[in-house]
Amino acid sequence: MNSPRLLSLVLALGATVALNAKLVTKPVAYEHAGTKLEGWLAYDDEKVKPGAKAAGVLVIPEWWGLTEYPKSRAEQLAKMGYVAFAADMYGAGVVTDDPKRAGELAGQFYGKPLMAERARAGLDQLVATGLVDGARVAAIGYCFGGSTVQALAYTGAPLAGVVSFHGGLIPVPAEAAAKTKAKILVCHGAADGFITAEELAGFTKAMNEGKFDYQFISYAGAVHAFTNPKADEIAKLRGLPIAYHKVADKRSWGHMKQFFKEVLGDTK
Amino acid sequence: MNSPRLLSLVLALGATVALNAKLVTKPVAYEHAGTKLEGWLAYDDEKVKPGAKAAGVLVIPEWWGLTEYPKSRAEQLAKMGYVAFAADMYGAGVVTDDPKRAGELAGQFYGKPLMAERARAGLDQLVATGLVDGARVAAIGYCFGGSTVQALAYTGAPLAGVVSFHGGLIPVPAEAAAKTKAKILVCHGAADGFITAEELAGFTKAMNEGKFDYQFISYAGAVHAFTNPKADEIAKLRGLPIAYHKVADKRSWGHMKQFFKEVLGDTK
Repeated sequence: MNSPRLLSLVLALGATVALNAKLVTKPVAYEHAGTKLEGWLAYDDEKVKPGAKAAGVLVIPEWWGLTEYPKSRAEQLAKMGYVAFAADMYGAGVVTDDPKRAGELAGQFYGKPLMAERARAGLDQLVATGLVDGARVAAIGYCFGGSTVQALAYTGAPLAGVVSFHGGLIPVPAEAAAKTKAKILVCHGAADGFITAEELAGFTKAMNEGKFDYQFISYAGAVHAFTNPKADEIAKLRGLPIAYHKVADKRSWGHMKQFFKEVLGDTK
Repeated sequence: MNSPRLLSLVLALGATVALNAKLVTKPVAYEHAGTKLEGWLAYDDEKVKPGAKAAGVLVIPEWWGLTEYPKSRAEQLAKMGYVAFAADMYGAGVVTDDPKRAGELAGQFYGKPLMAERARAGLDQLVATGLVDGARVAAIGYCFGGSTVQALAYTGAPLAGVVSFHGGLIPVPAEAAAKTKAKILVCHGAADGFITAEELAGFTKAMNEGKFDYQFISYAGAVHAFTNPKADEIAKLRGLPIAYHKVADKRSWGHMKQFFKEVLGDTK
């Protein structure tokens, strides 16, 4: 048998395995500082066996709360072999599509230790599944969640890396340079009007001065929420300057994959 | 035979193929505007057959001229299945390790149509090999070469994409937005003192206003020449603020690969 044929056979076998793979998804109840939370766990039980100590990824939602969107990202990550946990920041079942309400909900966290603490509760929950190698855990977040993973990293949380997708760039605390363990990838919409030139300059200055290990990527034409396929619908409904950008979504997901390969190693 | 064993066998076969692959490298004489030039062609003749119409990559050197470094990049690209051509900008055999002389040589091109024209002669030479699909050609460049691939793209040259590694950000001509066909990837050292904040701001503004398809990536801790393993040696010899940055080199090469996959498609 020549090698191209053999390769086709292997590819066909691979496809069969993929079809047989069982994606486990389930809500997970937990609690933080008196608030009852409910996150969303996803993994592929063909790839992740009990005691396997796979790589884990924490997913922090946009300011809308734990909607279908972050759950779908957790499932995508699970298909790639990660144990993914979409955290709940607000409280079991608390979601909204009203920007005013979302602003109030997210507003509880900005500039406060609670932002990192609540995210940390999600991280601990992910590790408590027993499926994850504690040295191979990363966190990603969208918009508000992008800010949150930055805040979590700055506390020195045991993370190999964080990825912020169209996240607000929050001030870097003075002690963060000494504490931070995570490598940082920021995926930024070049036309994102929510992030000011001052915030961008402040972030870059703090990163360079603090000698953080970071990568900052700007995607042409992308505005706020560029990775969320529902962004156009929400924009229309709510009159917000947000939009899905398919090309930037694909590029940033690819950049996240390369980053994970570096900081988490290979998955099965 | 179970699939992991089958996969090992295929991988072993793959390794054999790779060992048997023959890298063709050769100098190619050409001429532009009365200057005799000599570029460097590289391809893998197991992957690239006459009439195969493979994807091509033009490589524009640093201001040192066509030294071993751009040739080694052409060879790396050839191993990946591309037909690579490291262009000569200065004239056959004209290389230097003296920054003063390099500045004079590169100075002939900055701000002048000759920069794109001389690079275009190299691009034409690559296409003239007959090995390349003219719709699947990209250009990469280092430092001076990074500026040059920008200049070449802005003339509307038939390129699917350009990648600038630690290139100076040259002014974007007014007519470039309408002419440019190439998607643009800029790989920038976040600590590169040769590129001013004004140049960065001007580039971003021009890209956004002109609705260019670009991606701009900053790599923490990387200074000028961060991809060149010889940079430290040159820095010591010549007292220049340049340095090799292994991590940023690897990351940017990975980002280039993803970019090429998007703009050039798969290689064999």
